[in-house]
Amino acid sequence: MDKSELVSEIRKKKSFLCIGLDTDLRKIPSFLLKEKDPILKFNQEIIDATSDLAVAYKPNIAFYESLGSEGWKSLEKTLYSIPDNIFTVADAKRGDIGNTSKMYAEAFFKNMNFDSVTVAPYMGEDSVSPFLEFNDKWVILLGLTSNQGSKDFQHLPTGEGPLYQRVILQAQKWGNPENLMFVIGATHPDNFSEVRAIAEDYFFLVPGVGAQGGTVEEVADHGRNSDIGLLINSSRGIIYAGDGKDFAEKARSEAFALQQKMERYFS
Amino acid sequence: MDKSELVSEIRKKKSFLCIGLDTDLRKIPSFLLKEKDPILKFNQEIIDATSDLAVAYKPNIAFYESLGSEGWKSLEKTLYSIPDNIFTVADAKRGDIGNTSKMYAEAFFKNMNFDSVTVAPYMGEDSVSPFLEFNDKWVILLGLTSNQGSKDFQHLPTGEGPLYQRVILQAQKWGNPENLMFVIGATHPDNFSEVRAIAEDYFFLVPGVGAQGGTVEEVADHGRNSDIGLLINSSRGIIYAGDGKDFAEKARSEAFALQQKMERYFS
Repeated sequence: MDKSELVSEIRKKKSFLCIGLDTDLRKIPSFLLKEKDPILKFNQEIIDATSDLAVAYKPNIAFYESLGSEGWKSLEKTLYSIPDNIFTVADAKRGDIGNTSKMYAEAFFKNMNFDSVTVAPYMGEDSVSPFLEFNDKWVILLGLTSNQGSKDFQHLPTGEGPLYQRVILQAQKWGNPENLMFVIGATHPDNFSEVRAIAEDYFFLVPGVGAQGGTVEEVADHGRNSDIGLLINSSRGIIYAGDGKDFAEKARSEAFALQQKMERYFS
Repeated sequence: MDKSELVSEIRKKKSFLCIGLDTDLRKIPSFLLKEKDPILKFNQEIIDATSDLAVAYKPNIAFYESLGSEGWKSLEKTLYSIPDNIFTVADAKRGDIGNTSKMYAEAFFKNMNFDSVTVAPYMGEDSVSPFLEFNDKWVILLGLTSNQGSKDFQHLPTGEGPLYQRVILQAQKWGNPENLMFVIGATHPDNFSEVRAIAEDYFFLVPGVGAQGGTVEEVADHGRNSDIGLLINSSRGIIYAGDGKDFAEKARSEAFALQQKMERYFS
């Protein structure tokens, strides 16, 4: 999916909601466990109930990988269940030397058909650029993450701003707003204006709304640009809103509440 | 595997060789393609031919993941084919927020039974510590990598040494020489003495020998400690030494040549 299509979907749905599919056998409603593929069934119900409200789905690859080859199959089938007009994020945090990053890019962009993959910056340009070589595919590079550990290294001074700003600036030499986004955590609202100032035209994928404490308003007020330029993610707060037969309906209510908060940014 | 077992295997074999299983359908001998699982067959032949010379095998997870659920199956079966007295490294470069890193740790340590997994440091403590909570399992944290892109961020000054040194020092607050190693690239021989000085008792996993230009001698002369404290990896230089019926024999010759260079460090 290219940028203009994504922006068009956002305007049409008056939503910049990304739903995280952190699907865990220990947390899904127990009546689903009798299904042949409970993970897939859960995801399909969530997707069916929310696909008019969300512009993106983000399977968290760890949750599938933890189930081995069977989990990988559930992931492949989940991806087929997501409508074509919805942006897909493989939340994988990959990154390795060039020939290896190329294999990861093939895993997510060719073997599967994800629109984007999250990538870790520590290994530098040749670990990121193989993901940028696919048409209408995206790297979503870790900038400033939403977790406690983001304070360990991302804020270290480097002589020219903290590390996360160096990462965001340097990566703009490798990619552009048509193939590169950044992960910017919602738990750092103070940093949004500052990050927007150095990456004006870029989309940000924003985790940390809901369970981790950030709000849609803080992020949108400080972080949006003329295209909106945000994908705000909620995972657990939506998909585990209910644990009975009506879990998908409960998930829809949570997604709707978030979409309603977003709707006021469209005029 | 715990540290004393690993050190004992190293002394017994007079070897600190790790063989990287970067197994690629496009590079293995073509006669293997008629096998039901060519990747597995190739790996088994390599393992059978070299397991008396190597103390560790390191499947590069990207190569398996690029084949989807089928690749994941080949990986699971490869792991079963590695003798118990050999240390196994899931070269995965994972790392995410706490609850997600926990899932990755389960993928590699519980669902599969790897001894160690490579982890990226950018997201800090809570992205690393879930991997440290398993008995006799190891985190191998990226310190200074062997690729060109290592120059982009790892050498940035932080006020107290370059970033990679901060990572190596900070991580010693989370783990210890019994459950934590560091990736230190062989393409930086000048840095070995300096890294050894700040991480005296730790093992280093050293990629970059062979195809990427480093040598066993440079690494061992500057980087070893009283336990040896090194796992020097070679992947392509060994596994693709031949492409005919005798590929495993050719691989053995290359592994033997490296082991011979290592043998002189044991007295």
